[in-house]
Amino acid sequence: MLYSKLFPKPQKTNKEYDSANARYLINGGFINQVMAGAYTFLPLGNRVLVKIEQIVRREMDKIGQEVLMPSIVPTQLWEDTGRLEKVDVLFKALGANEASKTKNDAEYVLNSTHEEVVTPLAKQFTSSYKDFPFALYQIQTKFRNEPRAKSGILRGREFRMKDLYSFHTSEEDLLDYYNNVAMPAYVEVFKKLGLGDSTVIALASGGDFTDKYSHEFQTLCETGEDTLYYDKEENIYYNKEVVKDPEAKKYDIVKGAEVGNIFPLNTKFSKALDFTYTDEQGDKKLVYMGCYGIGTSRVMGVLVEKFHDDKGIIWPVQVAPYLVHLVGLDLNDQEIRQRATSLYQKLNDEGIEVLFDDREEVRPGAKFADADLIGIPVRLVISKRTEDKIEWKKRDEKDSELLAYNEVLARINKILTH
Amino acid sequence: MLYSKLFPKPQKTNKEYDSANARYLINGGFINQVMAGAYTFLPLGNRVLVKIEQIVRREMDKIGQEVLMPSIVPTQLWEDTGRLEKVDVLFKALGANEASKTKNDAEYVLNSTHEEVVTPLAKQFTSSYKDFPFALYQIQTKFRNEPRAKSGILRGREFRMKDLYSFHTSEEDLLDYYNNVAMPAYVEVFKKLGLGDSTVIALASGGDFTDKYSHEFQTLCETGEDTLYYDKEENIYYNKEVVKDPEAKKYDIVKGAEVGNIFPLNTKFSKALDFTYTDEQGDKKLVYMGCYGIGTSRVMGVLVEKFHDDKGIIWPVQVAPYLVHLVGLDLNDQEIRQRATSLYQKLNDEGIEVLFDDREEVRPGAKFADADLIGIPVRLVISKRTEDKIEWKKRDEKDSELLAYNEVLARINKILTH
Repeated sequence: MLYSKLFPKPQKTNKEYDSANARYLINGGFINQVMAGAYTFLPLGNRVLVKIEQIVRREMDKIGQEVLMPSIVPTQLWEDTGRLEKVDVLFKALGANEASKTKNDAEYVLNSTHEEVVTPLAKQFTSSYKDFPFALYQIQTKFRNEPRAKSGILRGREFRMKDLYSFHTSEEDLLDYYNNVAMPAYVEVFKKLGLGDSTVIALASGGDFTDKYSHEFQTLCETGEDTLYYDKEENIYYNKEVVKDPEAKKYDIVKGAEVGNIFPLNTKFSKALDFTYTDEQGDKKLVYMGCYGIGTSRVMGVLVEKFHDDKGIIWPVQVAPYLVHLVGLDLNDQEIRQRATSLYQKLNDEGIEVLFDDREEVRPGAKFADADLIGIPVRLVISKRTEDKIEWKKRDEKDSELLAYNEVLARINKILTH
Repeated sequence: MLYSKLFPKPQKTNKEYDSANARYLINGGFINQVMAGAYTFLPLGNRVLVKIEQIVRREMDKIGQEVLMPSIVPTQLWEDTGRLEKVDVLFKALGANEASKTKNDAEYVLNSTHEEVVTPLAKQFTSSYKDFPFALYQIQTKFRNEPRAKSGILRGREFRMKDLYSFHTSEEDLLDYYNNVAMPAYVEVFKKLGLGDSTVIALASGGDFTDKYSHEFQTLCETGEDTLYYDKEENIYYNKEVVKDPEAKKYDIVKGAEVGNIFPLNTKFSKALDFTYTDEQGDKKLVYMGCYGIGTSRVMGVLVEKFHDDKGIIWPVQVAPYLVHLVGLDLNDQEIRQRATSLYQKLNDEGIEVLFDDREEVRPGAKFADADLIGIPVRLVISKRTEDKIEWKKRDEKDSELLAYNEVLARINKILTH
């Protein structure tokens, strides 16, 4: 990608932001706020989001089948589960003007979660114990009528989410999938996203679904909005809401940003919707369900909260918008422009994703500052001073080196295979 | 993919449907109706949709940059362009219950199209003629308060769409991009989707944007809802709405299903939102815009309308959910099961997408009927009768042959490279 064509260019402002992800993602040209809690993912941000979702998809494909459920559904579905009046972030959709209402005066629910859609779907196509277990997932846009949307893309009114639902003939089978299939898959996802070292599993309330705990994947993070209690004796993290004796000395208090959660729904929805199967003896029994979420746009914000310095973002390789940020200097010199362009072309031919700062009118300091702000892992420079070599610097290291092309390529391939 | 694990299995019903795409996509287990005009894309259908959208994305990446804009936006944006009361399919979103409304009583528009979002975005990051031209696109879910949602996924209340917007300093530059960049890209998209032979460009009304025509990409199709007039003398298609003398003998009447449209918006939105740039003389001028849509979920329906027989769907290779439908017969014989499983594994190892009907209890006739209904391009059979060979049959051909593995692989690779 030619930097001169990139929409938009990073724009540093002196605005105050409530979080690092808002500051760097907005200034860096990754996202654009349309209103509190609703953002456009710009070309750079869209590339990061797609990479995050592909990492999630690859792991979920191993444990479930991908579907895409609608966002607007009949109000009746939410009445059937008794949640229409209960879920206090629920949106409805209806005609926006007189002409629209006159043509169709129905009201629909705009889903904040999809149990109301996936449960009737699963019910429609199953009857015998032989049809179980199975799991369906989607990666999709969700809507929540948040009163206080804040912290960049950490808490939005519209956001991207992966939600998986599993269906079982017994609590035992549900717990087996929950503990031995879903939980390891989640651990792998956060490891692959670069959050493995900083993400812990915290025990949280089971809500009105179960008297057991649910599990939150919490990235330890100063700007996280959840308060975690770490039991030093047992080596277990708890969400504040389930800590009975918060004054106990065995606890360290930790802040966390929730990036995923898994939840044994048990028979809550199958009871409400009369979702049963016939067992081997011919008896009807209730289906057991679990649900498993990952906030994919929120993960993007959390990555920035974890990986930045005072100059900008430091993307992990696997989610970076490009692998190489090639800075061309002294480009009014045709020979140097030719060298930079040729390097850009050669890296492209190798299938390496390169953002090439090909602007002539911008001074070196501004180009380097943009590169630091955007946070692409490898910075290469071609200039008068680099002669027949290439300047190599990683975003997370201080020092630069002059290398030959083959050495640059070898190092890039080493990064890609790690 | 093992057929025994596929959710759901095809279910033939005797229901009456209003269109071939509804009948075959629903019976074949590609889509599931949640309400009129809102469908879940099931695992098979989701795979087709993703392939369609990847084909569209690859061509659009050559002519624009991908973004993702929000669906819910402030009502004010639609007031600013004067369209809040005008667009008669517009939805709004607001709190669904008392608790939700009490926490946040704002109302938002649920976008049916994104000029109201992309125009302020483009305006924010441009000022000089040097910032033009450029184009942004997204592949995203759209909402329309359709009074009569019908024809399967041809006309929905919620559907998938690619929308691209281009920005220019003059009408001349807009028309150059429109005719010489966007139009050839669209021709290429429909060719790659397998609709090249049956899709024509029809002249249609320019609405209140321009006194010139807009252009519709219409797939000629008996079940299409648009009436087209083909001028035999001039070799031009017209949408009915712009034909002045419908009785003229030079016309043949043709039915079409609209799969894409391109539209010179000119200065309609830049005027409304005061979107100007500074030209080389320092004068302020209005920006020219074009918009370019492709209904990606609709394309899936149109493909079925075009490619089916009385047994089911006949997917073009590039959008088929799998390339190979491997039918195992006599699988209670362990040696035959071993042969079928080994073939499945070998094809998988070659990176070929295979749906393997591994069910024991289902008789051959039902398995073949399912294969015809689902419409995967290549059917392979392993059974007692095939001995050390493999039965090969293409979905769009009548006869089957017995082939050795290497010949099967050679033919598959030939299909894939075409």
